[in-house]
Amino acid sequence: MITRIAFIGFGVVGQGLAEILLEQKTDLKNQFGFEFEVVAIADKMKGSVYAENGLDVQKLLDLVKSTGKIEDYPEGIKGWDSIQTITETNANLIVEVSWTDINTGEPAISHIKTAIGCHKHIVMTNKGPIALAARELLSMAKTNGVEIRFEGTVLSGTPALNLGVNNLASSKITKIAGIVNGTTNYILTEMEKGLTYEVALKQAQDLGYAEADPTADVEGYDALGKIVILTNVVMGGNITKDQVPCQGITKITYQDIKEANKEGKRWKLIAGAELKEDGFVDAYVRPEKIPLDHPLAAVSGPINALTYTTKYLGDVTIVGPGAGREATGYALLTDILDIHRKVSR
Amino acid sequence: MITRIAFIGFGVVGQGLAEILLEQKTDLKNQFGFEFEVVAIADKMKGSVYAENGLDVQKLLDLVKSTGKIEDYPEGIKGWDSIQTITETNANLIVEVSWTDINTGEPAISHIKTAIGCHKHIVMTNKGPIALAARELLSMAKTNGVEIRFEGTVLSGTPALNLGVNNLASSKITKIAGIVNGTTNYILTEMEKGLTYEVALKQAQDLGYAEADPTADVEGYDALGKIVILTNVVMGGNITKDQVPCQGITKITYQDIKEANKEGKRWKLIAGAELKEDGFVDAYVRPEKIPLDHPLAAVSGPINALTYTTKYLGDVTIVGPGAGREATGYALLTDILDIHRKVSR
Repeated sequence: MITRIAFIGFGVVGQGLAEILLEQKTDLKNQFGFEFEVVAIADKMKGSVYAENGLDVQKLLDLVKSTGKIEDYPEGIKGWDSIQTITETNANLIVEVSWTDINTGEPAISHIKTAIGCHKHIVMTNKGPIALAARELLSMAKTNGVEIRFEGTVLSGTPALNLGVNNLASSKITKIAGIVNGTTNYILTEMEKGLTYEVALKQAQDLGYAEADPTADVEGYDALGKIVILTNVVMGGNITKDQVPCQGITKITYQDIKEANKEGKRWKLIAGAELKEDGFVDAYVRPEKIPLDHPLAAVSGPINALTYTTKYLGDVTIVGPGAGREATGYALLTDILDIHRKVSR
Repeated sequence: MITRIAFIGFGVVGQGLAEILLEQKTDLKNQFGFEFEVVAIADKMKGSVYAENGLDVQKLLDLVKSTGKIEDYPEGIKGWDSIQTITETNANLIVEVSWTDINTGEPAISHIKTAIGCHKHIVMTNKGPIALAARELLSMAKTNGVEIRFEGTVLSGTPALNLGVNNLASSKITKIAGIVNGTTNYILTEMEKGLTYEVALKQAQDLGYAEADPTADVEGYDALGKIVILTNVVMGGNITKDQVPCQGITKITYQDIKEANKEGKRWKLIAGAELKEDGFVDAYVRPEKIPLDHPLAAVSGPINALTYTTKYLGDVTIVGPGAGREATGYALLTDILDIHRKVSR
């Protein structure tokens, strides 16, 4: 069976996936029996195109680079919006990579519900819908026989979510503690070298790690969305972000950092979740002093990491990239292959 | 379908698995739809027993603790050897946990071939057969529709092998570098605190990390078996251990360690494999000076870790236990569940 893919959104991450799909087309067929066509793309800014027998992905990538407009593609049906692209095309798998709104989850939540309604599988890297409505969406999907995957919502392509959900599924996870935001980790690492918070932040902005408005990173809101996902998806919790105490790194001074070093420790912004004796899970985002011999202490710069504390294995830590065009594109590829493995049997 | 399990060998690791299976019986059924009976155990020293409707696992664990003899079990057929237990019982899954012979792979290789011959799935933690004959065994298994899993052969229950084989399967792995032997890592960590090699080794022996004859660990032979497995199973190589240059830690002095620290580095015994431009994989075991900001440098004591260098994600590192009754028992459980997922669809 050929997987027919529709992209909803075609920004950096979508293009990252498209490039990997092109590069690996032969290998994916030989190694996993995975064959695909990209049949549609709908992007709010770049326009849309649909061709039931498949589009020329290289041509689309070139177009985006040269004119920025998908609608310049020489063939196919133009002008369909994202909902129409989900419902009316012959795609059987939706790559949801529209923009992230962590407060409403829209328009992604509508895209996902629409796709579930017409029995199309979904992969995404968009934190919003999963942080806000994982339980509802997963249950809707199950009822409708639809697969949803979202490895890229936490640690991008580093298979941290998969590790918790699958590989450690029967290990009895009692605690999760992670460095899940690269911007703040980069700033803290630079501050340890002697920079002030302001200079380190400026440097992160210059390098493209931090947004012009860095609030979501430095106040911990990005990490907050991720720990809500981990709590609800890996630990079976049912929490919302309003229930999670959240403190960022803006109050950490060079003095704090020097003092921690004297104690053999290092400040890290930790997103954590802990199973309590009453069966509920407490989650939090806060700076913590981590002993230098803990694997999380060694995670520097924009790298992310997650430690699962388990009954049978003690601590298992995974370290890898937390962002990036290729890394996040790769997250979508693993999700697509996982669905392929599941539905093609 | 109920999985009917036969244990070939019932030492520390087998008992570790048996305890986890008992503890989790209800959860495994509810969470994964996995139901099982242990129908047979054959151990060269402890004797054997078979009951087609299932044995009382708690009673067997108690017997081993009190008399050390499985044959004291009040019911069932006694006296069958391991081959007979594989061929004649109604087990459909063999837990191969007999002793490890890294030079011949026997008797485990014969157990595995026998199980494949009678179409029974196999899980194991025994490095020997996989280090010596992975390609042959996996190909035989495939031909016969049999599943083989061996997560515990590398980093025990830490899902390091699974990470490479599954989660990173399409990430284009170009290099593997790992700390895969806990004993040598413990010794190096203690030497860094000021102990001599001899004192650190003695301490490792007292703690049960090192054998009375520590050769296999300190000369790198244990790590060698593991890197051969990783090379052949994860990187598609086809090497034998004779082709791998292998150097242990016996020549590292306190002076070497101090000098490395001055350079901002730390000695680690690294098992590595690297994809060359000609498509072949070079593997090695040797002490290397690792920069302190590399995740492997922070892995101390008996903990193990593995870094995969990939095209799409850069470095992904997993850190976790490399040995232990529960951790290795858990490796077998994940293998069993993986086979259950695959064959029960």
